[in-house]
Amino acid sequence: MSATFGNQIRVTLFGQSHAPAIGAIVDGIPAGVRIDEEKLQAFMDRRRAMGELATQRHEGDKVIFKSGVVDSVTCGAPICMMIENSDTRSKDYSNISLTPRPSHSDYSAFVKYGGHNDIRGGGQFSGRLTAAMCAAGFLCLELLRKKGITIVSHVSRIGDISDVSLDTLAPDPELNEQLKHSAFPVIDTDAKQRMTDAILLKKQQGDSLGGAIECAVYGLPAGLGSDFFGGLEALIAQTVFSVPAVKGLEFGAGFEFAAMSGSEANDDFATDAQDNIITSTNNCGGILGGISSGMPLTFTAAFKPTPSIALPQKSVKLREKEETELIINGRHDPCIVPRAAAVVEAAAAMALVNADGFIL
Amino acid sequence: MSATFGNQIRVTLFGQSHAPAIGAIVDGIPAGVRIDEEKLQAFMDRRRAMGELATQRHEGDKVIFKSGVVDSVTCGAPICMMIENSDTRSKDYSNISLTPRPSHSDYSAFVKYGGHNDIRGGGQFSGRLTAAMCAAGFLCLELLRKKGITIVSHVSRIGDISDVSLDTLAPDPELNEQLKHSAFPVIDTDAKQRMTDAILLKKQQGDSLGGAIECAVYGLPAGLGSDFFGGLEALIAQTVFSVPAVKGLEFGAGFEFAAMSGSEANDDFATDAQDNIITSTNNCGGILGGISSGMPLTFTAAFKPTPSIALPQKSVKLREKEETELIINGRHDPCIVPRAAAVVEAAAAMALVNADGFIL
Amino acid sequence: MSATFGNQIRVTLFGQSHAPAIGAIVDGIPAGVRIDEEKLQAFMDRRRAMGELATQRHEGDKVIFKSGVVDSVTCGAPICMMIENSDTRSKDYSNISLTPRPSHSDYSAFVKYGGHNDIRGGGQFSGRLTAAMCAAGFLCLELLRKKGITIVSHVSRIGDISDVSLDTLAPDPELNEQLKHSAFPVIDTDAKQRMTDAILLKKQQGDSLGGAIECAVYGLPAGLGSDFFGGLEALIAQTVFSVPAVKGLEFGAGFEFAAMSGSEANDDFATDAQDNIITSTNNCGGILGGISSGMPLTFTAAFKPTPSIALPQKSVKLREKEETELIINGRHDPCIVPRAAAVVEAAAAMALVNADGFIL
Amino acid sequence: MSATFGNQIRVTLFGQSHAPAIGAIVDGIPAGVRIDEEKLQAFMDRRRAMGELATQRHEGDKVIFKSGVVDSVTCGAPICMMIENSDTRSKDYSNISLTPRPSHSDYSAFVKYGGHNDIRGGGQFSGRLTAAMCAAGFLCLELLRKKGITIVSHVSRIGDISDVSLDTLAPDPELNEQLKHSAFPVIDTDAKQRMTDAILLKKQQGDSLGGAIECAVYGLPAGLGSDFFGGLEALIAQTVFSVPAVKGLEFGAGFEFAAMSGSEANDDFATDAQDNIITSTNNCGGILGGISSGMPLTFTAAFKPTPSIALPQKSVKLREKEETELIINGRHDPCIVPRAAAVVEAAAAMALVNADGFIL
Repeated sequence: MSATFGNQIRVTLFGQSHAPAIGAIVDGIPAGVRIDEEKLQAFMDRRRAMGELATQRHEGDKVIFKSGVVDSVTCGAPICMMIENSDTRSKDYSNISLTPRPSHSDYSAFVKYGGHNDIRGGGQFSGRLTAAMCAAGFLCLELLRKKGITIVSHVSRIGDISDVSLDTLAPDPELNEQLKHSAFPVIDTDAKQRMTDAILLKKQQGDSLGGAIECAVYGLPAGLGSDFFGGLEALIAQTVFSVPAVKGLEFGAGFEFAAMSGSEANDDFATDAQDNIITSTNNCGGILGGISSGMPLTFTAAFKPTPSIALPQKSVKLREKEETELIINGRHDPCIVPRAAAVVEAAAAMALVNADGFIL
Repeated sequence: MSATFGNQIRVTLFGQSHAPAIGAIVDGIPAGVRIDEEKLQAFMDRRRAMGELATQRHEGDKVIFKSGVVDSVTCGAPICMMIENSDTRSKDYSNISLTPRPSHSDYSAFVKYGGHNDIRGGGQFSGRLTAAMCAAGFLCLELLRKKGITIVSHVSRIGDISDVSLDTLAPDPELNEQLKHSAFPVIDTDAKQRMTDAILLKKQQGDSLGGAIECAVYGLPAGLGSDFFGGLEALIAQTVFSVPAVKGLEFGAGFEFAAMSGSEANDDFATDAQDNIITSTNNCGGILGGISSGMPLTFTAAFKPTPSIALPQKSVKLREKEETELIINGRHDPCIVPRAAAVVEAAAAMALVNADGFIL
Repeated sequence: MSATFGNQIRVTLFGQSHAPAIGAIVDGIPAGVRIDEEKLQAFMDRRRAMGELATQRHEGDKVIFKSGVVDSVTCGAPICMMIENSDTRSKDYSNISLTPRPSHSDYSAFVKYGGHNDIRGGGQFSGRLTAAMCAAGFLCLELLRKKGITIVSHVSRIGDISDVSLDTLAPDPELNEQLKHSAFPVIDTDAKQRMTDAILLKKQQGDSLGGAIECAVYGLPAGLGSDFFGGLEALIAQTVFSVPAVKGLEFGAGFEFAAMSGSEANDDFATDAQDNIITSTNNCGGILGGISSGMPLTFTAAFKPTPSIALPQKSVKLREKEETELIINGRHDPCIVPRAAAVVEAAAAMALVNADGFIL
Repeated sequence: MSATFGNQIRVTLFGQSHAPAIGAIVDGIPAGVRIDEEKLQAFMDRRRAMGELATQRHEGDKVIFKSGVVDSVTCGAPICMMIENSDTRSKDYSNISLTPRPSHSDYSAFVKYGGHNDIRGGGQFSGRLTAAMCAAGFLCLELLRKKGITIVSHVSRIGDISDVSLDTLAPDPELNEQLKHSAFPVIDTDAKQRMTDAILLKKQQGDSLGGAIECAVYGLPAGLGSDFFGGLEALIAQTVFSVPAVKGLEFGAGFEFAAMSGSEANDDFATDAQDNIITSTNNCGGILGGISSGMPLTFTAAFKPTPSIALPQKSVKLREKEETELIINGRHDPCIVPRAAAVVEAAAAMALVNADGFIL
């Protein structure tokens, strides 16, 4: 079924943009894990709106534990995390219910659900649901953290502006800490300024911009993951492509592999000073045969531009089958990529705690 | 678990490169489907070696039905398809068992399985297993075909040579037919020649080359797939990333989205001559909100170069933790990408028959 | 994972007896199903306390839809049904936290969760969770009802008093209607009186009583279910044994089969007046080879007596490993079997909507 | 799907009675487990025909490992175990293809598969498939054995003759060893003789007999299993009800609970000489709240009599919808219960290795 992921830590999502609530059930978290609600809220905040670059929907995204936690400690029962939708201006969407917004799910959902889908704010297809993913992912990130595994991400691209890459051979703890506390995590400050300018320009034009998030997992021991359908690429792909707007995903050198020869691409084995087996390059992104190699696991996800733009667009009235011009009102991000960094980390964490061999 | 995929048509793979057999159990295929074994064999042959561009392992890849089929018609019981491994020269691999080959699964599998993994020919991580995927995928392709759904693919890139793209707005039946019968499916004959030359050059150099496969699904009705983890991107990603050597995957405009504005990227809705709702562009690759839009579903998968090359490489003796030079003998493709086209189609078919709303 | 069931209609339960809430996520319910909240509440009420026979916990068991339903119609998104726990007197359980109650989950849960389990009211093992099962089951019952399938149950046994059996060859619509509206559904009114007396006597004695629920599914067409692990017995067993206190389950003649010969047991085929194929007896309980035969599906579930009794019992202090006498205070049913009828119907419905071949 | 069970050790069954082969894929068995093929064959033999009490189908039930095992040691890849069907006299079944045998799956499978089902020998519904269950179960039993967990069973009932019970408080190693090596495991030798006589009498009469298997799991530590749908009763029920002919299942006191009061039923806690926490009775059959209590886990499964009897029976011609008399020829057991003991142990083992908390 579509709303549930995982065999070891099972996450079930629910909610629509304008339903009473959104949330997640997380089943399988061991008993005895202390939940730091402040830290959770800080993580949730990374996904939330940030000043002039984002929409004006002001919700605390306060996570309420409805079950599974007693006195801030997990008790072994499934954990229900709920976020109430307090600020839902449904009227803004009234004109689109039968005129699908280009590159949104309106039309495909209309067909699938026979017109009964919740059109308000994009229903369950809304980016709002990534808040539920973040809540669930936070618990998974905590399990990883307890094993010394860290996930870091940054905005590697906005439009034609690229950031420098994360280190694919070893973590940079200071940089990572900085990225984890930034609402717009970019390594190169100059690139960050140009990205900001590009987004603001598009905002002014009533347009939007796509981008990419690069993510690295540091501290992952060798031997996690599996052959066949349980490979780390397959697992991470399933959760990351579940993030709305993700349309591309590559591990290590990814699409660059297509232009490489084996002698360029292969990651030679070597030993480090502590006699650990490492590779001298990491084009494979820390995954060999679907199994972690012990090197940093790296991937990049491409996001399409926010499809909600203020510019007039062409659409079709579903009932009349009549072409028409559509103006989308309401609140929309000119670029959701900065906010997506936390979501990508959450998605990766959900996948990794379900990797074969990961001991809870 | 790692070897099983799907909730509606469930595929379970088994086998290693040098085990007595490889194969697949396919559960859920409706009773009464006639199996055209000649057609199956023709599909299997597309994945097999092709003359001077590929390895010399000469196996018929003859699929034997051990269960689920009576007089060439499915009976509703799980279908066991088995391919015997007749030509397995295990000796060729004796020197690598404790010196992992760069960018192969040798090292990560060694750690995961505590040294008990089947090292011969790469064990279950071998590209040989894609024959089992093709056998299972053939049955899925047949179910799709009965619904008027066709999957077509071609080699879109080898090294720095690119093919032209498949039509993302409508199928070209003649071209598709031609690609489906080619052992090296490329649209542009000039590009094909240059790709061949590039592969042969690398072969001569004892090296290998990466590439990419572009795939299109034509005839998919709107409304298949799902929100959350059951989205078509997530489903297809799970099967396609299970194909060994795939390191990147993008849908529609994919990574190009990162550089686009919403006004460029959005696919406007329109009506065609028959009053069907279509989009005038198809950057989203036929998927909106994880659900098919009725437009061709398109994606591209990037393959890393065959890691088995004849050139000397650096590795480490696992027991002694000693750096060493490794020479890989044995039979290896200079480029597996042409053979991967059928595998990618098979993988996509496995995903699509498991899409929410696909009626068997 | 433990909290999720089903591949077609997926139910995920959450909550503990004294958590803020309990509930269920139901994923896969088609869009466009109207929810009759009054009918839902009436079904929930069948499971609730009833006068002198049951506990004094007065909660409305009001089901709140947090997602998946818009204007009382399902929209295709996962349905979150939540019931708040308003009346939770946690203090009553303070003395048992380290002295496990006999035949409760206290001890086994203590070991499993390392003492972090929610001891209050039995945590997630509480009979209270059957309210969440009923909420989820109600939606499944509605799907069945739309296909003309009815589930009926009654208290077939309390202590040494047995009720007459449901008709295993054809439904009795009038009786079924009556049973569905009874808080203590028994066919034979004399037996019902004796059962009531027996329960009240035990209540007076500070003791409790076990019993059994017989359940019949009428209108199930032939051909649903499956071979192997998807057989109807296996599916129904998984949900019914998930109901706390169920310790036995039999289909059709069940344990009586052990004493029968084939010539006595076999259900001969015949045709009815409408030329339908029927069986002249129904010892197999409407299931042949795991697949429905078209005859009424019948099963009986045995319940152990409520383990919470007022009489002093022997237990062990978990920390000190010291034997001790335990007195359980708090509110407890002398017999939960009458209230379990609705729960068993809900559990059976969850299983049947997931049967192979059941079309939503 | 129907042919696959388990999230930790995943078993997929395939084959029909008269297909080329039957077998199982077992995925998740750790690498490095030595397979004792002689022991496996001895276990398979317990399920096979035994002299005058059983059918004359003489097949070695030789298990061939097609994958997953290298030099008799598991390598971590999915294990394909195959048993060829050498002795399949398909002609014997020709007259039944359109006249369903009473209490067999013929009719329900005909409806489900639209007449395409494999009628020969009962197809995938045949008791023959329990050989595949035994092969898979053997691997699971080995994993349990390594943790000190033993499963023992005996024929507790045939017709109106009952055996004494297994010890529910502690194992009797000598008795258990004896039962494990018996083709007809009964504790009381007098009961065994009477059971044998009863079966032979029915055989002479062309009739058959039902019975029951009692099973105990010794050495199971406390804390395995789960709340909700992952309870040990629910897990074991799913595999045991998948065994053809099982129509009833009870844990501990099972159906006797219905007649008990809480004060009679409750299992008081106590400490043993080693200060372990035990219960002084074990009516709950070693399971509290779906989780093991550390006491022996006990259950009994009821089997219906072999439906294939030599006596004339009434049936209906499916095409003509005409009542008719049916004579079943071919080879049939007068009582399959003795052979079922090994199958029940295998089924229980499959469930237990998938219990939450079972560490491989």
